[in-house]
Amino acid sequence: MTYQEILANARTCVGPYCKACPTCNGMACKNTVPGPGAKGIGTGFIRNYQKWQELCVNMDTICENKPVDTTFSLFGQTFALPVFAAPVGAMQLHYGDKYDDLTYNDILVSACAEAGIAAFTGDGTNPAVVEAAVKAIAKNHGHGVPTIKPWDVDTIRGKMDLVKTADPFAIAMDIDAAGLPFLKNLTPPAGSKTVEELRQIADAAGKPFILKGIMTVRGAKKALEAGAAGIVVSNHGGRVLDQCPATAEVLPEIADAVGGKMAILVDGGIRTGMDVFKALALGADGVLIGRPFVTMVYGGGAEGVQVYVDKLKAELADTMAMCGAHSLADIDRSMIFSK
Amino acid sequence: MTYQEILANARTCVGPYCKACPTCNGMACKNTVPGPGAKGIGTGFIRNYQKWQELCVNMDTICENKPVDTTFSLFGQTFALPVFAAPVGAMQLHYGDKYDDLTYNDILVSACAEAGIAAFTGDGTNPAVVEAAVKAIAKNHGHGVPTIKPWDVDTIRGKMDLVKTADPFAIAMDIDAAGLPFLKNLTPPAGSKTVEELRQIADAAGKPFILKGIMTVRGAKKALEAGAAGIVVSNHGGRVLDQCPATAEVLPEIADAVGGKMAILVDGGIRTGMDVFKALALGADGVLIGRPFVTMVYGGGAEGVQVYVDKLKAELADTMAMCGAHSLADIDRSMIFSK
Amino acid sequence: MTYQEILANARTCVGPYCKACPTCNGMACKNTVPGPGAKGIGTGFIRNYQKWQELCVNMDTICENKPVDTTFSLFGQTFALPVFAAPVGAMQLHYGDKYDDLTYNDILVSACAEAGIAAFTGDGTNPAVVEAAVKAIAKNHGHGVPTIKPWDVDTIRGKMDLVKTADPFAIAMDIDAAGLPFLKNLTPPAGSKTVEELRQIADAAGKPFILKGIMTVRGAKKALEAGAAGIVVSNHGGRVLDQCPATAEVLPEIADAVGGKMAILVDGGIRTGMDVFKALALGADGVLIGRPFVTMVYGGGAEGVQVYVDKLKAELADTMAMCGAHSLADIDRSMIFSK
Amino acid sequence: MTYQEILANARTCVGPYCKACPTCNGMACKNTVPGPGAKGIGTGFIRNYQKWQELCVNMDTICENKPVDTTFSLFGQTFALPVFAAPVGAMQLHYGDKYDDLTYNDILVSACAEAGIAAFTGDGTNPAVVEAAVKAIAKNHGHGVPTIKPWDVDTIRGKMDLVKTADPFAIAMDIDAAGLPFLKNLTPPAGSKTVEELRQIADAAGKPFILKGIMTVRGAKKALEAGAAGIVVSNHGGRVLDQCPATAEVLPEIADAVGGKMAILVDGGIRTGMDVFKALALGADGVLIGRPFVTMVYGGGAEGVQVYVDKLKAELADTMAMCGAHSLADIDRSMIFSK
Repeated sequence: MTYQEILANARTCVGPYCKACPTCNGMACKNTVPGPGAKGIGTGFIRNYQKWQELCVNMDTICENKPVDTTFSLFGQTFALPVFAAPVGAMQLHYGDKYDDLTYNDILVSACAEAGIAAFTGDGTNPAVVEAAVKAIAKNHGHGVPTIKPWDVDTIRGKMDLVKTADPFAIAMDIDAAGLPFLKNLTPPAGSKTVEELRQIADAAGKPFILKGIMTVRGAKKALEAGAAGIVVSNHGGRVLDQCPATAEVLPEIADAVGGKMAILVDGGIRTGMDVFKALALGADGVLIGRPFVTMVYGGGAEGVQVYVDKLKAELADTMAMCGAHSLADIDRSMIFSK
Repeated sequence: MTYQEILANARTCVGPYCKACPTCNGMACKNTVPGPGAKGIGTGFIRNYQKWQELCVNMDTICENKPVDTTFSLFGQTFALPVFAAPVGAMQLHYGDKYDDLTYNDILVSACAEAGIAAFTGDGTNPAVVEAAVKAIAKNHGHGVPTIKPWDVDTIRGKMDLVKTADPFAIAMDIDAAGLPFLKNLTPPAGSKTVEELRQIADAAGKPFILKGIMTVRGAKKALEAGAAGIVVSNHGGRVLDQCPATAEVLPEIADAVGGKMAILVDGGIRTGMDVFKALALGADGVLIGRPFVTMVYGGGAEGVQVYVDKLKAELADTMAMCGAHSLADIDRSMIFSK
Repeated sequence: MTYQEILANARTCVGPYCKACPTCNGMACKNTVPGPGAKGIGTGFIRNYQKWQELCVNMDTICENKPVDTTFSLFGQTFALPVFAAPVGAMQLHYGDKYDDLTYNDILVSACAEAGIAAFTGDGTNPAVVEAAVKAIAKNHGHGVPTIKPWDVDTIRGKMDLVKTADPFAIAMDIDAAGLPFLKNLTPPAGSKTVEELRQIADAAGKPFILKGIMTVRGAKKALEAGAAGIVVSNHGGRVLDQCPATAEVLPEIADAVGGKMAILVDGGIRTGMDVFKALALGADGVLIGRPFVTMVYGGGAEGVQVYVDKLKAELADTMAMCGAHSLADIDRSMIFSK
Repeated sequence: MTYQEILANARTCVGPYCKACPTCNGMACKNTVPGPGAKGIGTGFIRNYQKWQELCVNMDTICENKPVDTTFSLFGQTFALPVFAAPVGAMQLHYGDKYDDLTYNDILVSACAEAGIAAFTGDGTNPAVVEAAVKAIAKNHGHGVPTIKPWDVDTIRGKMDLVKTADPFAIAMDIDAAGLPFLKNLTPPAGSKTVEELRQIADAAGKPFILKGIMTVRGAKKALEAGAAGIVVSNHGGRVLDQCPATAEVLPEIADAVGGKMAILVDGGIRTGMDVFKALALGADGVLIGRPFVTMVYGGGAEGVQVYVDKLKAELADTMAMCGAHSLADIDRSMIFSK
């Protein structure tokens, strides 16, 4: 199947909220929650997408003609390209009955490992979700990143003990999930954590710990202080707070502040290898992509994941070649056009 | 009733000018006067709304997890949140026959007091309007702000004597009402006032005196010099002069000039608790909201007011929690994204 | 008749190019030449209009309450407001058969004089146009500004001798007319003039000489050097060269360079008294308005002119009052909002 | 035939991708490849066009009234105006069956030479294309610029030997063609070249060597270092890499860096003589125009080329006259409006 065929096929089984649009940009699903849209007036998702498009790249083909290498290393692991599948949850609520979280993660984790990348898995009120994710990651030799919600610290410790049984190469927590409805008003309370609490959690992880949901330099420095091995610059795709800046807007300053001291990943509106190139040029080490992997799995299962990863890799390699970058390390901010 | 139900209900009884739109942004009613629109080409209202939307907030959930407190204090009074209902007049002319100014104010003042906030009441050529507002405020133990038009000074003194019988916690004057048709060409003339005249009026008020309709640093300084206890940064919702800047555009500079020396309130296009958060982050102490309270009262009476205040409070609290602010005092300009 | 009625009436007799739009902004007639549109892709007219709209004014009603005075003085003459009717020619070609240039100017000059302002009259290949304009201006005691095309210097001298018989208070030349088709390739050549040639022409005028069609500081300085008593910052309504900046964009810098040394008038997209206020705030002494006077004359004859002048004056006075300006001299750049 | 008639005629025989639009701006053919569109999301072509339109020119007609001269000299040749026809290839694939590359180049080279300009010819996998181009250029006494793809160096040497037989006044290579599908994955590899390789190629050319596809200052300096006599600031009309800046955006900085040291040509979205004027004002010596020559040849053959060149020359001369430039050397950056 081609990418277009998989997308067309997805249109027959996702929904009714997601339209599996030719370009996944937040327009058609604006503020549809449940569904893939964003919170409030719904412009968070759209802005994430749009700000990548506003960036232009500096073409320069006067350079040595040799193959480009998209190989990416993180925490001792090597990946085919600097892309991860982002954690997505409550599949049936948001994307339709075809897959529950357990089946979705099972397909996604294996397909990503097979395609040379890795998937982040989600978390939910149903403990079975993480249990199944752990099985999928274990089955794929730790090639997956279990992502735990910011429950109370005791609950988190329990979840940490569980996910470590899969020997994942990293463990993540989406600290911004405090804005999701199902995490509000729990007893004991879920949500925000202090630096001290995060340090305890990072210690409990016993693996490189990634903090997802950082949108400010101050937040990034607190994550570093808490001992996180990496962050995901993310506004949760616009789903936890309306009217955040786009991640492309805050990434450069954050990269300037903590780059080199911890891994910097970014998500939000990244759709093509060109977008991946831009994220790296602005200072990210790698990216997470969410919604497109959903439509690929709904429309093509494991094959959909492979086709999309191949597409991303080809686009990234083409952009690198046209801008004179032969390895990811060659990509820097001078390759972005500044007015 | 839910907020959406009240809005739907309002559509059956406001009008023909107001459409009780899903988002009250000045588009559908552009330049409809009579009606809720703005003067001239009608972009003043639209710009007010739009400029709040262009601001982005800085999410940061690495902080202590404790309840947020939206409690607001002004002139010795305590309110549930930093929001007031703005003065609106000529209800039948602009919003339809269901309510005259007397009935509208009677419902609004009591419902606001009940919901933990307070209403500003309007003024008009009919003396009964202020008389009824005085009764409503007195009945609610002074929880309301009578707002007097800028008549000639003698007329104002008379009105001041009347409104003080309600023992309101503050008295206001909308100095920019000079641009309203019914105030033009009166004998003796109404409209603009010198600093010296305003000082006499503030003295006559004998209560914290709030000057509404300030759009420049120079104007704010004159209000301070005149002895005003507070100002409302306001362009009268675009209804007194076409093509003013939005209040969100002039607020920061005004706050920098007179903040801390007098109370700074702001109105114009504020619709959600997110907007309230942004106003406070730019330097306001509190906000006034006008047209949405009209649709709430038309669609749901006192219940409409309560539902809308609850909605505002929840949105404000959610935004505060997601930006790491636990009290209004924690909200500052660093929480607004600057490019 | 009201302004709206006159406009409606104009729709029955101008055309087919001009639509007598509710707002005369260059959209409906974009690049219709013949017709009221602009040259090339036709955005010159639109941009002229749009740039005035983008400016915001600073409302401030804390000031003395006294009547505003819109009286304007230029070259020893006093006018009711700082507005002139701009020269328009080839009426039948561009606006339809109802009026030829002779009849149009005859109505316009008298009606403007009657309304307390003055009209600039046009020039054309037919010598009768200027001859008739001279008669109209003479009949109105010199209250009109004959505007001569930039023919060869000898032809201009002849025209100057003719127009001086009307004893006009000023004489103008639209130096940018070089871009009009009918002035190209004449023998002897018409068009551009050197400073030295312009000095001879200004001398020949023997009246305050106004150079129309200045768009740069350099051009304004050359006009001053040539002995012009005034300039009109103008791009000929977009009709002589495509893709000029709007006059509102170049006015401030020109006013800073030559203001106080010569009269600065401006035209292009000015429609309302609010626009007139903005032009003066940016440094103009007065303005010219073209196309709207055409629709007023087509739709209402002399009455149309009076109604439009009354409308402009009321709008200007209202804006002045709301910004705290009591005379034209009070209007300055601090009354324009700067971001 | 008029320009409009030729365009109308082209609509009957180009296609189905090209619509021979009234304005060739990349909107109707967005991302149609095959076809005249651009790569990826297709905004490269659109942005190229749009950025010229955003520039405004400074009108100034106070100057000597004498004819303007558009004569252009390059590498010892004299042309009627500073415009070349850009190389276009794979005509049948992109523009329809009417012409193959051989016939198209044959018509274009002769018609351009006849009209006083010169055409760049393209290259392709079929060796007959360059062979035929060589014949056409030889027939026109070297008035044409053969453009060679960046094959491997040995292949290029062979092509150079061939094209030199036509004694062209210059030889070009489109170094950015690396991004075209048919040049990928060849053995030996085509595409990027080092400065050292380019120096060998320039030497092999034995004629002024023009490097096409430069988008950065760094690239321009490398071209200079490699001994190129000129560059074409170009992003290949958006066809080799998505989301490049427009050429109008990068031209000024490149001109500042290497202007005067080598010839600077530019292409991308240039359609009118006004656009040519702007390109020269930003620092270019001359321009290339691509797609419009295709529609002219399809719609009018050699006559189409003559009509379009006449149109460009008249527009350029008109703009020069209105901005006070009498020769190409008079055009400078002060003639572009800067905000």
